[in-house]
Amino acid sequence: MGEYILPIEILIERFRMLPGVGRKTAARYAMAVVNMSVEDANAFANALLSVKNDISFCKCCGNLTDGEVCEICSDEKRLPVICVVEDVRALMSIERVREYKGRYHVLHGSLSPVKGIGPDKLNLSGLAERVVNEAIEEVIIATNPTVEGDATAMYITRLLSSFDVRVTRPALGIPVGADIEYADELTLSRAIRGRQKID
Amino acid sequence: MGEYILPIEILIERFRMLPGVGRKTAARYAMAVVNMSVEDANAFANALLSVKNDISFCKCCGNLTDGEVCEICSDEKRLPVICVVEDVRALMSIERVREYKGRYHVLHGSLSPVKGIGPDKLNLSGLAERVVNEAIEEVIIATNPTVEGDATAMYITRLLSSFDVRVTRPALGIPVGADIEYADELTLSRAIRGRQKID
Repeated sequence: MGEYILPIEILIERFRMLPGVGRKTAARYAMAVVNMSVEDANAFANALLSVKNDISFCKCCGNLTDGEVCEICSDEKRLPVICVVEDVRALMSIERVREYKGRYHVLHGSLSPVKGIGPDKLNLSGLAERVVNEAIEEVIIATNPTVEGDATAMYITRLLSSFDVRVTRPALGIPVGADIEYADELTLSRAIRGRQKID
Repeated sequence: MGEYILPIEILIERFRMLPGVGRKTAARYAMAVVNMSVEDANAFANALLSVKNDISFCKCCGNLTDGEVCEICSDEKRLPVICVVEDVRALMSIERVREYKGRYHVLHGSLSPVKGIGPDKLNLSGLAERVVNEAIEEVIIATNPTVEGDATAMYITRLLSSFDVRVTRPALGIPVGADIEYADELTLSRAIRGRQKID
């Protein structure tokens, strides 16, 4: 299938760098660009550049921002609670449910000796400082329930052990609406271990 | 879900202009760009612009080219047969099967009174001229088997009626590997009408 002319082939390769995009989808996208107006293609290119040029990480929490400090850190109504997440997508997911009214701290990864990611590669340095300066009462470690995420949570728990702050993790268990029959063993075992009294 | 910061939202809207891309997929793509290196994002933007700036339509057949005349028209080994297609994707599909060794003519659309697309909006002007100049022996009209494609084929057939050239259409029938039970009535009726003697 490698028969498009060079400029299209180059664009196809670029589209393939997006998550879940194979050769056929990339070719469809590239042909859609060919059929776009010049204005639309220029706007598309500018939007790509703008995301890299106009966006940086919040100096306080590591969230994405087009200023110095992100909207959440600037919001004085946020409770003195920090939710630690691996990435911005996790932050967005938690924001979306509108249950949580606290602040965030984005690690930009998780500890992984295999991939050579140690604590120095994560956005961890400012966390303890924030706990003190912002008089934080609770740190919720919402890293993913994976080997790396669990290891990261353990590391942060130890890091904060000398501070007067409650450290918690979100509950693990059976997803709402799921069928117990189809829950994997690990999830089921965690759900039973974490069982709660019915009031 | 409209909670990303502005530069990301703008990029999401751009990705949504690609075929089959909804809000969630566009957001995933945009976040992938956020996580790209600056070099990769620049290369992506340049690839987009290059497709619009460095590509034009072949002066001879209407195919895409990064020069004046496309690779196929420049290929002297191509037989004196022209396959008329609606768009470049159809051309690519036919090239891919390596069955056809002739030339092409890309219409960039099909006749549609409903959409206000008349013969003047299609790349038709040069076709008759090519038939004469290139001593074409056969014109295969491979427009889509739709109302518009059929009307376009009829129009071209009439256009070429005064020229000494054979005008054909690809066979319509049951797709290879398909189940006759599930073929639609129109396809089945065309397949039976176009039945061929077994040698």
